[in-house]
Amino acid sequence: MSTSIPVVEQLPTLPTEEVLSAVRSAFAELAAGTAVQPAQTVTLLPGGGDVIAYQAATSDAYAAKVSPYLPQPDGPAIVTAWTVVLSTRTGRPVVLCDSAALTVERTAATTALAVDLLARSDASTLAVIGAGPQAHAHLRYARAVRSFTDVRIYSRSLREAPDGTTLAASADEAAAGADVVLLCTSAAEAVIDVTALSPGTLVTSISTNVPKAHEIAPTELPKLEVYGDYRPTVTASAGELVIAAEQGIWSPEQLRGDLPELLTGTCERPSGERPVFFRSIGLGIEDLAIARLLVPST
Amino acid sequence: MSTSIPVVEQLPTLPTEEVLSAVRSAFAELAAGTAVQPAQTVTLLPGGGDVIAYQAATSDAYAAKVSPYLPQPDGPAIVTAWTVVLSTRTGRPVVLCDSAALTVERTAATTALAVDLLARSDASTLAVIGAGPQAHAHLRYARAVRSFTDVRIYSRSLREAPDGTTLAASADEAAAGADVVLLCTSAAEAVIDVTALSPGTLVTSISTNVPKAHEIAPTELPKLEVYGDYRPTVTASAGELVIAAEQGIWSPEQLRGDLPELLTGTCERPSGERPVFFRSIGLGIEDLAIARLLVPST
Repeated sequence: MSTSIPVVEQLPTLPTEEVLSAVRSAFAELAAGTAVQPAQTVTLLPGGGDVIAYQAATSDAYAAKVSPYLPQPDGPAIVTAWTVVLSTRTGRPVVLCDSAALTVERTAATTALAVDLLARSDASTLAVIGAGPQAHAHLRYARAVRSFTDVRIYSRSLREAPDGTTLAASADEAAAGADVVLLCTSAAEAVIDVTALSPGTLVTSISTNVPKAHEIAPTELPKLEVYGDYRPTVTASAGELVIAAEQGIWSPEQLRGDLPELLTGTCERPSGERPVFFRSIGLGIEDLAIARLLVPST
Repeated sequence: MSTSIPVVEQLPTLPTEEVLSAVRSAFAELAAGTAVQPAQTVTLLPGGGDVIAYQAATSDAYAAKVSPYLPQPDGPAIVTAWTVVLSTRTGRPVVLCDSAALTVERTAATTALAVDLLARSDASTLAVIGAGPQAHAHLRYARAVRSFTDVRIYSRSLREAPDGTTLAASADEAAAGADVVLLCTSAAEAVIDVTALSPGTLVTSISTNVPKAHEIAPTELPKLEVYGDYRPTVTASAGELVIAAEQGIWSPEQLRGDLPELLTGTCERPSGERPVFFRSIGLGIEDLAIARLLVPST
């Protein structure tokens, strides 16, 4: 019995540029066909609850992320997620890590990649809606891709603005006149009025895993230029996209592009005529990309 | 960063009775509906090869086994398998282990469970065909369920009989008059003539993962009382069963029973009128049952 791979329970601080570069490479590999992203599987547990398994492979590694959802008789359900990464050169595991912190990093880095690809190059005003770990990570990664000089933040629970930011009185006040608006809430309903935004403004949304959760009104989608992280998964799972498609007011063919398409120049960029909306769901290859940074040398 | 779960690369010696009891419990849970055994998934790797993922859950644990098949430009493919077990009480991983040795133990213990359920209670003569790790493990576990006084062994490569066994000149000579015949070869074709066996003789077969591999002639199936480890998987994957069904000489409805049915008494036991054939494919719940024995206390 010997222990020879790192088991990472607490994420070390990862260099922002390295994380951004890893996520960018993962989507470039997806575009080039050297990364694969199979559908997730759900195993219903005999005692109630379930385990969702996500798999992903890039040119030299494979990852399986398993995430149990375990209802408790008295109190909130236990939800965890663990990722095991195998080298596809050796067939051996290289790291097993707690995916919770990993998820925050990869989600924020993916949003920042979208900001880099979709926001005006001279974007200077940023609005962040939310004040949790996702909001903080989004702010950090967004600052790495644009030089924001005016940063407004709004959250119902926030009483004091973090350093270098201004506290707004409402989400709509924070968003008014901003070049980029990052929605980082766990809201299940619209948090800003996107019809009040100027053409070219970029709004990003991550929302939650709750079925049909959304941070903007599905009815406003036709007024926006809509992009997503990965076409097959975002059109199937994003609450506002699914609702608008069910209502017949928007269809998946209207998605202008996704990150692999934006990286390879195979979709139209924003026209500047309408506000731009970027929605992400999250992919196993993002987890794999970050998890590999935890391994000293593979 | 902290290491707090065992990573097992070399299997410690496990008590035979504990392993047998764990495998029996796993099949009993499957019968009772407190264990689930989803279908396996195959992820094709971008650079060639694939990863098969097996999942399983019992009343208090979940396991994912990932097995990469990695073709090499010069030499045989690399094939590994790793199992990560999560507690479904806490949602946390409890062990990550190399599944290679685990597979030998659970396969042999499953065969022994079948011997216990299908062989004559006074069985005294045993034939083992093969001399690899599976043959040795099969011999060890079979001896725990019946008091064999005459043990014959045959393998093309074997020059000397292990302690307490007699070397046979051929597989058919070893099998002649035996109460139980354990086939433990990597042969892709029939290794014994089952038509020469007496009624009530039990033949077990594990075969290999090679598509349509088999250790008895598919054409002889109609002359046998056929059982399997688990009805849905064995009828779909066992080489001789699939071939015989394709030839129209046998159908999956003719499978008399599987281990969950035998344990709960919901299928017919052997009639004693024909030789009995037991075929196993292997299940994720078996890996899970053994892997949990590696965890000091969960």
